[in-house]
Amino acid sequence: MKVAWSRLIRFVATDGRTLRGEPIMPSADFDLGFVTESDKLQAKVIVDDDLYDTTGKTKVTDEVVTVKRLLGPLTKEDVPILRCVGLNYAKHIREAGRQPPPFPSIFFKPTTTVHDHDVPIVIPKIAQDDQADYEGEFCIVIGRDAKDLSESEALDYVAAYTAGNDVSSRKLQRDPAYAGKVPQWGFSKGFDTFAPLGPCLVASDLIDDPSKLHLKTIVDGETRQSEGVSDLLFDSKKLISHLSQGTTLQKGSIIMTGTPGGVGFGLNPPKYLVPGTQIHVSITKIGTLRNGVVFA
Amino acid sequence: MKVAWSRLIRFVATDGRTLRGEPIMPSADFDLGFVTESDKLQAKVIVDDDLYDTTGKTKVTDEVVTVKRLLGPLTKEDVPILRCVGLNYAKHIREAGRQPPPFPSIFFKPTTTVHDHDVPIVIPKIAQDDQADYEGEFCIVIGRDAKDLSESEALDYVAAYTAGNDVSSRKLQRDPAYAGKVPQWGFSKGFDTFAPLGPCLVASDLIDDPSKLHLKTIVDGETRQSEGVSDLLFDSKKLISHLSQGTTLQKGSIIMTGTPGGVGFGLNPPKYLVPGTQIHVSITKIGTLRNGVVFA
Repeated sequence: MKVAWSRLIRFVATDGRTLRGEPIMPSADFDLGFVTESDKLQAKVIVDDDLYDTTGKTKVTDEVVTVKRLLGPLTKEDVPILRCVGLNYAKHIREAGRQPPPFPSIFFKPTTTVHDHDVPIVIPKIAQDDQADYEGEFCIVIGRDAKDLSESEALDYVAAYTAGNDVSSRKLQRDPAYAGKVPQWGFSKGFDTFAPLGPCLVASDLIDDPSKLHLKTIVDGETRQSEGVSDLLFDSKKLISHLSQGTTLQKGSIIMTGTPGGVGFGLNPPKYLVPGTQIHVSITKIGTLRNGVVFA
Repeated sequence: MKVAWSRLIRFVATDGRTLRGEPIMPSADFDLGFVTESDKLQAKVIVDDDLYDTTGKTKVTDEVVTVKRLLGPLTKEDVPILRCVGLNYAKHIREAGRQPPPFPSIFFKPTTTVHDHDVPIVIPKIAQDDQADYEGEFCIVIGRDAKDLSESEALDYVAAYTAGNDVSSRKLQRDPAYAGKVPQWGFSKGFDTFAPLGPCLVASDLIDDPSKLHLKTIVDGETRQSEGVSDLLFDSKKLISHLSQGTTLQKGSIIMTGTPGGVGFGLNPPKYLVPGTQIHVSITKIGTLRNGVVFA
């Protein structure tokens, strides 16, 4: 599907308004994630009653404004639900000594987890004596209601792609009801601010083949995750088709496709998030999602 | 908290309009779940811009209409998210030979699962060679945004209670990624129509002590589940307080508190849902939620 914009950002303009816009890219390889006020990045204002409109109603206008501060492209009100996939990078599964699952392992994050680019992730009290961790992820934005799709039609329902961080509490996720052996993903990954997304949405028609993208997570300057999206066991088509069986994937909903090896939990010794940690999730053509960490 | 109504129903009136209203109860023990057109049940129309308003804006009006067909009290647009609790009835945990967990096991159902009273649950193709099952549940409706609540203040955020059915696919819920040992609740319980709710919302001020309620699930005339809500290991206060830690429980969101022993999966031999199965979930003071089953 073809939406009204090529890239979509949300930002505070120099005139103080919070707007959505199509950035005027200074160069083809400009990374929006590192934009500062001194870059004087300009954007054409988007009139956005419906972000994923394909009828011509939503328009990139001729009004050009200057970006003061980039936010995330989406607010929690824009996202009906986030579906997340566990264990989806083939090398990571093999490293962990597991068998590839026959179908995707799915869990949900509530929309209250949606968080802006460039503001700190808030680790709540219940998870502060825990083991908070990052998971850099390639994310799919569904642009129209989808149900019972075949793999061949799945990508027609994708409006855009973005980067995300599936922030997780490792201790809370090991469900004590099953003697610590079973992941309890819903609660431990569902705290407010635990799903930063951004720095922009990139329209799906700008990315012919998502499997050619590369994901990298850098924590305090150290590269922790670096993997091609081609390593996904269940790629975008397969995920969308599977998840839509018997289920309406609502317009605006997000699929976080899973994380490759290199999370803090898997390091020896493990390295968890502490106040002041800086996390960069970079994906080719999408840019860098960056967030700090605070305890509050 | 005190909302504008005592009981809230949604229905098609004899004049063809779909409305919300406060039913005029024919008797104190009248069960709204069995109302038919010949009962000529009347209701006062509720002007419902905000179902959980406490400011006096939302009103039970003097306009009296007659109910032709009862629907569920809530549509999917009314519900931001459903939080569900696994393993929460103490006797059921002991029967299963498990240890009581130190905190609740949580999973989510997307809002696309929300389904009306008195219409069939639709088992999709992917779950038809599976083992579809019922779970009768006592449900809490959050009436205002809640975060970081203590147990003592938790019930102040409850607008109402209702009955629900956490429809489940037993085969799909055993995650093959973990050799069938780990529940995969998100996908297997998340199909469209898999969360019937109703037959009405009962305002929390009508139910002093939810633990005095009794839940019963009757399948094709056979009583399968019958348990006091008092048997909940984590009661309403504890659940709301725990779930709100670091997390905004949004106004309108639902907590399904778990199911007692007696699901089809646990019978010997197991009895699963087939086309034509009739399920009644009855809770004292709330009434009977009834749904058939179709394969489609």
